[in-house]
Amino acid sequence: MNFEPALSLVSYGLYVVSSHDGEKLNGQIVNTVFQVTASPAQVAVAINKKNLTHDYVSKSGVFSVSVLSEETPLKFIGLFGFRSGRDADKFASARYKPGETGSPVLLDYSLAAFEARVRQTVDAGTHTLFIGEVSGGEVFSGGKPMTYEFYRVALRGKTPAGATTYQGEMK
Amino acid sequence: MNFEPALSLVSYGLYVVSSHDGEKLNGQIVNTVFQVTASPAQVAVAINKKNLTHDYVSKSGVFSVSVLSEETPLKFIGLFGFRSGRDADKFASARYKPGETGSPVLLDYSLAAFEARVRQTVDAGTHTLFIGEVSGGEVFSGGKPMTYEFYRVALRGKTPAGATTYQGEMK
Repeated sequence: MNFEPALSLVSYGLYVVSSHDGEKLNGQIVNTVFQVTASPAQVAVAINKKNLTHDYVSKSGVFSVSVLSEETPLKFIGLFGFRSGRDADKFASARYKPGETGSPVLLDYSLAAFEARVRQTVDAGTHTLFIGEVSGGEVFSGGKPMTYEFYRVALRGKTPAGATTYQGEMK
Repeated sequence: MNFEPALSLVSYGLYVVSSHDGEKLNGQIVNTVFQVTASPAQVAVAINKKNLTHDYVSKSGVFSVSVLSEETPLKFIGLFGFRSGRDADKFASARYKPGETGSPVLLDYSLAAFEARVRQTVDAGTHTLFIGEVSGGEVFSGGKPMTYEFYRVALRGKTPAGATTYQGEMK
């Protein structure tokens, strides 16, 4: 049964999830971020095991989540979403500040950010679900958060293979 | 540090997650649904341990997710979101059909639905994260999926205590 059309109606935001390995910094586009509990505040993020950010979050046990603005250009999403940190230093050309967990906190096109410390790691096959307790957060500016829908429809953005929602063809 | 304003910029949809305990049916409003992997297709949902739907999903190992339309009236969300299935038979006044997992599949105000079988259960404290493999899905009609943002801002909908995103005050 083809359940892809039904699944494609699930709503998501668009985020950069970042972490570090000592001095090395990396981050990637993620659409799968949600709050799991309110007290304590915990968030879940799903990350492909092949990604460098996955390695960094696994090793450091910390990550930051930056909420992208609707005004984020495709080029910027391309840098963080379609390139691997193994081939490019993504933060070399981005504005950021060190977060209290040691993760870089992106400032470009970022409405807000929060940081978390991993409490549970769930092996879901191709992806790992990291559940982290939120340790801090900050709003940088007003504006509308980018949704995955806006990215796909208004910006005609593509979905890389390896995403949780990849469907084999670009839509 | 007050990280609530940053967390409130995370995007969600609005869904009814349903399950069964033999002949007994129940469902509840959930905003925390996301796809975790593409192959196989797996989705995660976070449900408060106190809720009857939590008991049913835990026992039956199956659930359905209905994607609510933007046209869903607040009254309907009130029935599924602010009442407990312990006090009311929510499906008594709703149109639905039996799904292939045995979970009821809501037809009222539902753009689409999919069903899943639980593969992993993650204890996250007040809530359980159920990770299920999608076994089927169907689109019922065109229209815009209700987002949590639309519910809160356009419909001025409230968030019940016990939600993953409850912040102590209504916004």
